[in-house]
Amino acid sequence: MNHLIEKKLASEKVFEGNLLTVYCDKIQLPNGKEASREFIRHPGAIAVVPITNDGKIVLVRQYRYPTGKIMLEIPAGKLDKGELPDDCVLRELEEETGYVAQRIRKLSSIYTTPGFTDEVIHLYLADQLTLAKQCPDEDEFLDVEVYTKEEIKDMIAKGIINDGKSMLALLLAGI
Amino acid sequence: MNHLIEKKLASEKVFEGNLLTVYCDKIQLPNGKEASREFIRHPGAIAVVPITNDGKIVLVRQYRYPTGKIMLEIPAGKLDKGELPDDCVLRELEEETGYVAQRIRKLSSIYTTPGFTDEVIHLYLADQLTLAKQCPDEDEFLDVEVYTKEEIKDMIAKGIINDGKSMLALLLAGI
Repeated sequence: MNHLIEKKLASEKVFEGNLLTVYCDKIQLPNGKEASREFIRHPGAIAVVPITNDGKIVLVRQYRYPTGKIMLEIPAGKLDKGELPDDCVLRELEEETGYVAQRIRKLSSIYTTPGFTDEVIHLYLADQLTLAKQCPDEDEFLDVEVYTKEEIKDMIAKGIINDGKSMLALLLAGI
Repeated sequence: MNHLIEKKLASEKVFEGNLLTVYCDKIQLPNGKEASREFIRHPGAIAVVPITNDGKIVLVRQYRYPTGKIMLEIPAGKLDKGELPDDCVLRELEEETGYVAQRIRKLSSIYTTPGFTDEVIHLYLADQLTLAKQCPDEDEFLDVEVYTKEEIKDMIAKGIINDGKSMLALLLAGI
């Protein structure tokens, strides 16, 4: 596979914010020529399909500033430093929805956009839920909504649910 | 839904490269407090599941510098300025794989990572393929590989194919 590999020559951090760290690296292409690669370093994240005891799916509706749209997604969140994905699933699910899961199962780990970020999202299914108290981050505003599997399928088919990770996780969960 | 909307107060372009444009906006939260939102503006992209006349799937293997990995994905590429997604599908498919499609069908349009970018990928299926000549961009190195549906399913189950858009498009295409 060496005929495909790009080699790092130099790395420059061009922006560091609270959320995003942006790099512009000088690289050597497989043919020996030089090029640049701009990309975002990301801590990784989880996303989870929560299934209630009566077989419904818990979604969150929130404004996504980059898209300028209110979107319907499965609960998700970034890994805290050093946090294990399994722990992050339980924490984010409870913070965003108030549900506590007795059981979680990993569905897959995916690269969201390998052309410009190293972000990996670990996709999970969670069930045996009990309702505690929602406590989102202080700059996070979201509505918790519960749908049947048929409603979810319909909303995917109509493009009402159009977040990639949510669609993929719901399909992998057999919805 | 007004209780969810975040209002732009000021916008600052903090990095502009060849690929990525990064913004840091000052916003007003639904509760009136101020916060910041960092995000990437993206021109949008297409990704396509190409099905050969004998029912196999065409994938591309390439080094994805941000992830540091050689990855197996469906053909994909960014929209040129003013380019329609349908035209981009035909162009990228031929450039990356050498295949010309007589027929394309839209599967869905998805947000890849609405937490930090407005990137939309339009997912397509393409068939009735004829083989012309591969002509990738000059800084793009990739191998074209053809797999049966059973091999694709197996590689998704084993995490060998772990690119989100590719997995979702393959599932939506009924693979």
